[in-house]
Amino acid sequence: MVYTYPPSYKIHGKGVVKLMNPKEFRELVRQGKYINQTIGLLPGFIQANLVILPQENAIDFAAFCVRNPKPCPLLDISSPGGYETYLAKDADLRTDLPKYHIYKSGELEEVVTNLTAIWRKDFVCFLLGCSHTFEPLLSSAGIPIRYQEQDLRLSLYDTNIETLQVGQFRGTVIVSMRSIPKEKVVLATVISARYPKFHGGPLHIGDPALIGVDLDLPYSGDKVEFLPGDVPVFWACGVTPQHIALNAKIPYMITHAPGHMFVTDFLIDDL
Amino acid sequence: MVYTYPPSYKIHGKGVVKLMNPKEFRELVRQGKYINQTIGLLPGFIQANLVILPQENAIDFAAFCVRNPKPCPLLDISSPGGYETYLAKDADLRTDLPKYHIYKSGELEEVVTNLTAIWRKDFVCFLLGCSHTFEPLLSSAGIPIRYQEQDLRLSLYDTNIETLQVGQFRGTVIVSMRSIPKEKVVLATVISARYPKFHGGPLHIGDPALIGVDLDLPYSGDKVEFLPGDVPVFWACGVTPQHIALNAKIPYMITHAPGHMFVTDFLIDDL
Repeated sequence: MVYTYPPSYKIHGKGVVKLMNPKEFRELVRQGKYINQTIGLLPGFIQANLVILPQENAIDFAAFCVRNPKPCPLLDISSPGGYETYLAKDADLRTDLPKYHIYKSGELEEVVTNLTAIWRKDFVCFLLGCSHTFEPLLSSAGIPIRYQEQDLRLSLYDTNIETLQVGQFRGTVIVSMRSIPKEKVVLATVISARYPKFHGGPLHIGDPALIGVDLDLPYSGDKVEFLPGDVPVFWACGVTPQHIALNAKIPYMITHAPGHMFVTDFLIDDL
Repeated sequence: MVYTYPPSYKIHGKGVVKLMNPKEFRELVRQGKYINQTIGLLPGFIQANLVILPQENAIDFAAFCVRNPKPCPLLDISSPGGYETYLAKDADLRTDLPKYHIYKSGELEEVVTNLTAIWRKDFVCFLLGCSHTFEPLLSSAGIPIRYQEQDLRLSLYDTNIETLQVGQFRGTVIVSMRSIPKEKVVLATVISARYPKFHGGPLHIGDPALIGVDLDLPYSGDKVEFLPGDVPVFWACGVTPQHIALNAKIPYMITHAPGHMFVTDFLIDDL
């Protein structure tokens, strides 16, 4: 049986409601019983974006992350060929994410739910922080999450903000946008800034045109409806490496499918 | 001519006093005209520890730094064979530090002032944050720096705190110890915690025995004299990778000589 909505700490529609820990959830994913998005599941636990590269490109990408910590906050790196992480006991990064994207020379070649068959001894895994991790804290502080209220996907936009280049890795920063009531913008900024490992404070607040964004044209996700008094707030986004892979035609790169993140054993304040 | 004390923002003994910027200072070092410690020079500018490894060990070391950010806060990584950094315009990491240590299989093999002749295309440079960077902020806040008052070297100690292992890289954390008046300990903690890239807040405050330290037996540096009411405060130290290299017998590793750091163009609040 494949769950549409996995049991978790959150009630999804009319899905089964059950307390589940990250290890149990990863087991479900590993068995192919859950292949959907992880956004909103197991709130409180850190979810991570994934990038996998052959060893020959890995040092340049590590340097790219260190130089661009807002879009690419490094949470962990595996030894070449390794698929384990200190962030989750007994996890297997080849199988424990619901869906993966395989890019070849800038083209999305394949979407798969398991990497075991194509694993190579020179693959290096990078886990990067994800801004969905701090959304429960915004909610707890009374900050509405508009895209969730409107049952949409989070809006992502391309910008005119250049990353610091390392080798082949170059391109613009992708941002996530949340429309936030004007009187809550400072609070959202202060809360997110406490978590540099999940993209930290916003990259920009206010006029989208100043960072080259047209709100009518999302890079991916949905266009959200602004309520009167809402201000657009932009955070650097972990989809940036995928955008870089496409634009810079990186020979071979595997990532999580957007929204299909890795659920760790760590709570948001553990890092 | 070789300067004993380089011109800088600080008056050293009876040395020449002149305003000097980091680029001018690095130029002096590159020409072999300054080969001494950099502690206290050009205050306000970020100084960095250096680790150089062959590419085959570099991913494991990058992972080691990501998993152990307190002793090894990553500021930059170079592309294999590269010796540039975004932290300093036109810098050359092969020549712009006053002194380097070369370790082979856990032995300090050589101390040199220039790496140009032995440079290899597979060398990867890592720049790590250094706690000396925040010392001027402690001074500005009225926190006495005892080892400087007593004209000693900063005390470093080995601990019983294990790092998170990655591949060959394993061992205990080296800490720097500053004796701080009891009423200033919280202030020193809060100030340093604002700077995770320079080791952040202390690893331990109080009883040295709890972390396996005997204050009479420094790992390196000098034993400092405690004044009545002083409390020992321990910060993770960037000498940890050198300790790891020695203990784990890493085949080949180059580092800065202790106290002989790389002076960047960045001010402490730029990162």
